[in-house]
Amino acid sequence: MIIIGERLNSSRKAIAQAIAEKNKKFLQQEAHLQAENSACFIDVNCAMSMEQEIEDMRWLVSTVQEKVDLPLCIDSPNPAAIEAGLKIHKGEALVNSITAEVKRMREILPLVKKYNAQVIALTMDEDGMPSGVAARVKLVEKIIGEAENFGIDKNRILFDPLVRPVSTEPQQAQVVLEAIREIKKMGCRTVCGLSNISFGLPKRTVINSSMLTLAIYQGLDAAIIDPLDNNIMQAILATEALVNKDEYCLNFIKACRNKKI
Amino acid sequence: MIIIGERLNSSRKAIAQAIAEKNKKFLQQEAHLQAENSACFIDVNCAMSMEQEIEDMRWLVSTVQEKVDLPLCIDSPNPAAIEAGLKIHKGEALVNSITAEVKRMREILPLVKKYNAQVIALTMDEDGMPSGVAARVKLVEKIIGEAENFGIDKNRILFDPLVRPVSTEPQQAQVVLEAIREIKKMGCRTVCGLSNISFGLPKRTVINSSMLTLAIYQGLDAAIIDPLDNNIMQAILATEALVNKDEYCLNFIKACRNKKI
Repeated sequence: MIIIGERLNSSRKAIAQAIAEKNKKFLQQEAHLQAENSACFIDVNCAMSMEQEIEDMRWLVSTVQEKVDLPLCIDSPNPAAIEAGLKIHKGEALVNSITAEVKRMREILPLVKKYNAQVIALTMDEDGMPSGVAARVKLVEKIIGEAENFGIDKNRILFDPLVRPVSTEPQQAQVVLEAIREIKKMGCRTVCGLSNISFGLPKRTVINSSMLTLAIYQGLDAAIIDPLDNNIMQAILATEALVNKDEYCLNFIKACRNKKI
Repeated sequence: MIIIGERLNSSRKAIAQAIAEKNKKFLQQEAHLQAENSACFIDVNCAMSMEQEIEDMRWLVSTVQEKVDLPLCIDSPNPAAIEAGLKIHKGEALVNSITAEVKRMREILPLVKKYNAQVIALTMDEDGMPSGVAARVKLVEKIIGEAENFGIDKNRILFDPLVRPVSTEPQQAQVVLEAIREIKKMGCRTVCGLSNISFGLPKRTVINSSMLTLAIYQGLDAAIIDPLDNNIMQAILATEALVNKDEYCLNFIKACRNKKI
């Protein structure tokens, strides 16, 4: 499981403030904790900085990589901020994200190619988020086609079938789980930003954990999560044991010994 | 989800002792707690009473039904103890269990018919426990055929595909999950005694909860569990919300309000 640590996101008040105050120590500690807890990428987002974003992204990328020896997930709606981050990033970054919107793909895919990055692709387009499986698969095909035009192979892309809140759309979890299986059948990799599924509900981590368990069973490759959330990490370790991705449960047993479970 | 509460089992020391001492209050409290926590059946097992078992079963059935207004799951290797329990049971009992062994079926199925009970059927036979999906399906067919000979419809049976420890057989969870789906396709109902899956592992409830989440997704109808295990009950409530068996998450939200999650 490719774990993308989501904590360094400026939509969290404490992070936005630390970025504004250039509080290196706090942000590096947040990155370090995620790295210690199995993150493979650290997501960095400073979209709340607004007109400061490009400068802040540059600062945040170097601040985080000064402390942790991990690739980052450069997360922004702004192509210029993404490029600023990629330019100084050490190693092979992940870009968060493109959609199937033609304008967005044509802005971002050249950067993905130029900086030899990987990219998260959300299955939505100019018409918004689709509700069914087939529509999601169609968007995946469209993205693969456009990426090829830029010389980017589909194995450089992580497709996110976009979960929607189960509290208002009771069938959406099943649709997304089926979509994961279908996208895997196309020889593509999948990622999931989980938290939407439990929007509007209490005890969200309980819903998120069960959703992640089901998604891993369907073949999910990567997840954007909080590596400090014990429920989530337990679900990953237990499920990987159950789907034979942790032979003889060695990782699970080790995590128990280290009091991570 | 049909929850079969497993706590009143004489393989637990405290229960065996309470049965031996005819400690009504303790046993009734154990039954009551399970009933309060969503049990649909209360399993009663006094197999550790040995030569006292028939008498103890009679006493335990009446003791439990004196306190809780639920049907019981009459659990014994001994046909005479099962009949003793069925004879005084109020309402429609569940028998735990038959296998595909011809001798066992011919001993127990006439009792199931006579007392209008339902029955749990384990997919194993004279040759032991099968390792694959197809072998399990074959045993289900054999059991359906024999039950029909006794005038028992397959909808009176809960089939248990028998999980085996994932710590020593890393592919068995997936096999059982696939078997659940196949058995459901045959128009049959399924049940799972979960605890075997985590045999030999630490923090068993974490593994059991993820396994239950996956089994519910595959269509599991019933589970033999401890209704006082919060991890397990959370997994059931969250997963039922995700697979659209709890529309608009009303049960989940109610459980959160009642501090059950």
